[in-house]
Amino acid sequence: MHILIIGAAGMMGKKLIQRLMEDGGLKGSPITEFTLVDVIQPEVPAGFAGKTTCLAADMSIGDTAAQLVEGRPDIIFHFAAIVSGEAEADFDKGYRINLDGTRMLFDAIRMAHAADGYFPRMVFASSIAVVGAPLPFPIPDDFHSTPLTSYGTQKAICELLLSDYTRRGFMDGIGIRLPTICIRPGKPNKAASGFFSNILREPLIGQTAVLPVPDDIRHWHTSPRSGVGFMIHAATMDLDQVGPRRNLSMPGLSATVGEQIEALRRVAGDKAVALIRREPDPAITLMCEGWAPGFEATRARALGFVAEDSFDAIIQAHIEDELGGSL
Amino acid sequence: MHILIIGAAGMMGKKLIQRLMEDGGLKGSPITEFTLVDVIQPEVPAGFAGKTTCLAADMSIGDTAAQLVEGRPDIIFHFAAIVSGEAEADFDKGYRINLDGTRMLFDAIRMAHAADGYFPRMVFASSIAVVGAPLPFPIPDDFHSTPLTSYGTQKAICELLLSDYTRRGFMDGIGIRLPTICIRPGKPNKAASGFFSNILREPLIGQTAVLPVPDDIRHWHTSPRSGVGFMIHAATMDLDQVGPRRNLSMPGLSATVGEQIEALRRVAGDKAVALIRREPDPAITLMCEGWAPGFEATRARALGFVAEDSFDAIIQAHIEDELGGSL
Repeated sequence: MHILIIGAAGMMGKKLIQRLMEDGGLKGSPITEFTLVDVIQPEVPAGFAGKTTCLAADMSIGDTAAQLVEGRPDIIFHFAAIVSGEAEADFDKGYRINLDGTRMLFDAIRMAHAADGYFPRMVFASSIAVVGAPLPFPIPDDFHSTPLTSYGTQKAICELLLSDYTRRGFMDGIGIRLPTICIRPGKPNKAASGFFSNILREPLIGQTAVLPVPDDIRHWHTSPRSGVGFMIHAATMDLDQVGPRRNLSMPGLSATVGEQIEALRRVAGDKAVALIRREPDPAITLMCEGWAPGFEATRARALGFVAEDSFDAIIQAHIEDELGGSL
Repeated sequence: MHILIIGAAGMMGKKLIQRLMEDGGLKGSPITEFTLVDVIQPEVPAGFAGKTTCLAADMSIGDTAAQLVEGRPDIIFHFAAIVSGEAEADFDKGYRINLDGTRMLFDAIRMAHAADGYFPRMVFASSIAVVGAPLPFPIPDDFHSTPLTSYGTQKAICELLLSDYTRRGFMDGIGIRLPTICIRPGKPNKAASGFFSNILREPLIGQTAVLPVPDDIRHWHTSPRSGVGFMIHAATMDLDQVGPRRNLSMPGLSATVGEQIEALRRVAGDKAVALIRREPDPAITLMCEGWAPGFEATRARALGFVAEDSFDAIIQAHIEDELGGSL
């Protein structure tokens, strides 16, 4: 089995590769070949015996997309995107990478399909940013996409393209609306949503973290482990049962910041909680109030997608996957 | 006031021009200039004293879009599209005209905005084809867009672009999801939905018409007169009250074919109804069952959009507008 991962140098791309290496295959089929692509050169997976091609490439330029499907990968995972803040700051770059790049990939698949019947499984990482306030809680599966960012608009457009290209029989696509990934490993970053991870990750290792919003802010989370699990399930499940509505809001955990903090207290005690420094930021708070508080995810749950059901479990996954299993 | 109409040679474009000529202006401002565009050369409006530029042009080619906004029209009406059947038969042409052409128009406006602050009112004719079965009845305003045609996909994508370009401040856009226009004037055509009009229009002038579906098929209609009314209201209303969700499902009349026929009987008698010949067509029936049975249109009604509330009124509008006022 030949697997193409676009966005392979990012956090989720790397986690997916690690999981695929551990599993050794997908649904009983061994992985014989990786094609790994990102705007920076991805690393060859340590210990992989099969063929690996690592490329630094931009899918929205020239015939990159056609080159990527030339080797006819069986499964394509597409994570690559300009993130929300940058897509808002640079209108042209956001549309070029997030919309045109994806459309060029889908069109390259369509051309290959016309040439020799090529028909890959296409797993697209979409986002809860496709919805925009005012939002009900929980958000039903049939709620409309009215994004309030250019990033969310680009993801929503790619979802529509994915459904149409799948309906027309060019590929077997599925769009996965990922919750906010928490606890995101690594260093604190400047993303407006970064604090959701920071206030857990840093205190777990004895560091302070800044909380810019009130305790009653509610948001929609899943662990990196579950996020990777969604992608694997999407790559291997029977999609005939999904029908033409190919974009699924994933399950996750709806929690307030206060609930996150109480889970931290249960797992790591009062001294961890004491490391959270409250520095209210009205601008970040306003942004957060427009974000998704949580989804019903009825269809995805029925189709076998599984996420954590407590923040304790999300913290536990982080301790196991990032901190060697104990504090 | 300078008005640009794209798709000016089509049925709705012509009706809009006629209405604008009758009204003489928009919201108290006289019309001083028309730019009329279509793939075939539109006609100069008879009796118009202002400047008129008529162009046969394809917006998806070269710098056509930039040329169209060069004269800085105050209001842009955009009806132009490859229809559903052709967009399904010719994938590339549908995406080129319906998606790329519209995006090139929006980008030409964006560039003009960057150059000199140009900020037109952009009235986009969208379609109920943005939704796809299975559908609730009535369909709420916040129901998701899961089109089952490439045409519907292209319209849904343009809706997303319109909202984003408006949110970013490049233009003042509004998308109008038109119901099926009934009674469509002219000769019977081959559109699968044509019978909704044919079974009324032809018997009203003593001609036979074919009905390919059962009487209990329910669909969503408005007269050409109301459709034009929506566009005029969209061009003149205060859009600040609309907020960022700029695509509105228009009001209309939800009726079964049986209800259409009973309205025809009330207006034109049993002898008109006797001219309807039932020739069941399972393929057309199957298609119809996937179409929208009707919308709540709560937001549009609250914003002052008005449609007929009976099929008798729709037939009466046709008699007045197309048949000189009496049978």
